[in-house]
Amino acid sequence: MNKGKKAVVLLSGGLDSTTVMAIAKNEGFLVYGITFDYGQRHSSEIKAAKRIAKDFGAEKHFVIKIDLRKIGGSALTADIDVPKMEQAEQSGIPVTYVPARNTIFLSIALACAEVLGALDIFIGVNSIDYSGYPDCRPEYIESFEQTANLATKMSVEEKKHINIRTPLINMTKADIIRKGIELGVDYSITHSCYDPSPGGLACGNCQSCLLRKKGFIKAGLPDPTKYMI
Amino acid sequence: MNKGKKAVVLLSGGLDSTTVMAIAKNEGFLVYGITFDYGQRHSSEIKAAKRIAKDFGAEKHFVIKIDLRKIGGSALTADIDVPKMEQAEQSGIPVTYVPARNTIFLSIALACAEVLGALDIFIGVNSIDYSGYPDCRPEYIESFEQTANLATKMSVEEKKHINIRTPLINMTKADIIRKGIELGVDYSITHSCYDPSPGGLACGNCQSCLLRKKGFIKAGLPDPTKYMI
Repeated sequence: MNKGKKAVVLLSGGLDSTTVMAIAKNEGFLVYGITFDYGQRHSSEIKAAKRIAKDFGAEKHFVIKIDLRKIGGSALTADIDVPKMEQAEQSGIPVTYVPARNTIFLSIALACAEVLGALDIFIGVNSIDYSGYPDCRPEYIESFEQTANLATKMSVEEKKHINIRTPLINMTKADIIRKGIELGVDYSITHSCYDPSPGGLACGNCQSCLLRKKGFIKAGLPDPTKYMI
Repeated sequence: MNKGKKAVVLLSGGLDSTTVMAIAKNEGFLVYGITFDYGQRHSSEIKAAKRIAKDFGAEKHFVIKIDLRKIGGSALTADIDVPKMEQAEQSGIPVTYVPARNTIFLSIALACAEVLGALDIFIGVNSIDYSGYPDCRPEYIESFEQTANLATKMSVEEKKHINIRTPLINMTKADIIRKGIELGVDYSITHSCYDPSPGGLACGNCQSCLLRKKGFIKAGLPDPTKYMI
């Protein structure tokens, strides 16, 4: 076990990263949450992340602002419509892909890990449901881990090995939900929707809502989310 | 030549990145500058970067805010004194090392390159003078380039190769200055100091000022910098 060891957990406020937080806690880590306020279209994600960090007793929760809107290139950071229903299920890399997002997030998490002396960075990437995103694939994560180990004082000078931990990478959404429920996760406090109402209700028909709904159905478990439709 | 091709150039406002900008222009690229406002102790660097982007006729200059002070861990982003004189010349990784800085900067430059459709990212890292920094070494840069090529839509789906260009990596400071002068760089508009006066004058005795001064002496060229001492 990892009792007393520190881990940095990327926390988006969604179902996947919350399950990852539960897994890291269950492995005995002292968890440090990190969330990015990157100009995504709404602040519901960040509010959810704050609730989750508190709920899990995170040692600290870093909320890092970084204005990716200045760069744009995604339906999440520029004025491009978030696709709905059938359109949301098209193949190829979707318009909700944010250029180099996981590389940016992992790099900042790496800085955080180095300052804390944490050797484990947890990220909820998944290559089953998000096969369209290049930076959710195992070969990408392995390569980032190699780069991380060449990048920092702690890995180069102190010869400590940094681990990029992706416990969900080969799990279906239903598997993830079952795992979370087994670990006592309260999914009602998580937020997945790409395009919520001004009051924060999930739209129910963007790619992220569709995946979430199907996941609960396939897991045979009740979905605590309140959807607009 | 690269006439009409786009390149992203990391621009700190210092001597090295300005020389890199001149090299990219000289190779025929349309240059896009990117500068990070990361909570470094002063804004002289950013002002210098803006002057340089304008001076070189950059197509666009992105100034991206990212608050690394929340993470800390460096004399440049936390309340740790910037070392002076002999102390500045000690071996090992210096306290001015910012955890994972180049990984963070290159990741954001990668996002920028993807949105622009640029395949070349120029960075002024140097393994001679900055041998203490793990993320200035060739093996680090090669690894980041591999990761970048696994990370993006343009490299994975469109099979385009992203190049991390480090023209200064094996040059001494004197070589860099000679190269810049040959390309017509006006070094008086650049800023290197880690710890300038409130008015923006270079301190003259931090690691960065010492390297700069020695560089001009070794190159046998006049240093246009105004130092406090």
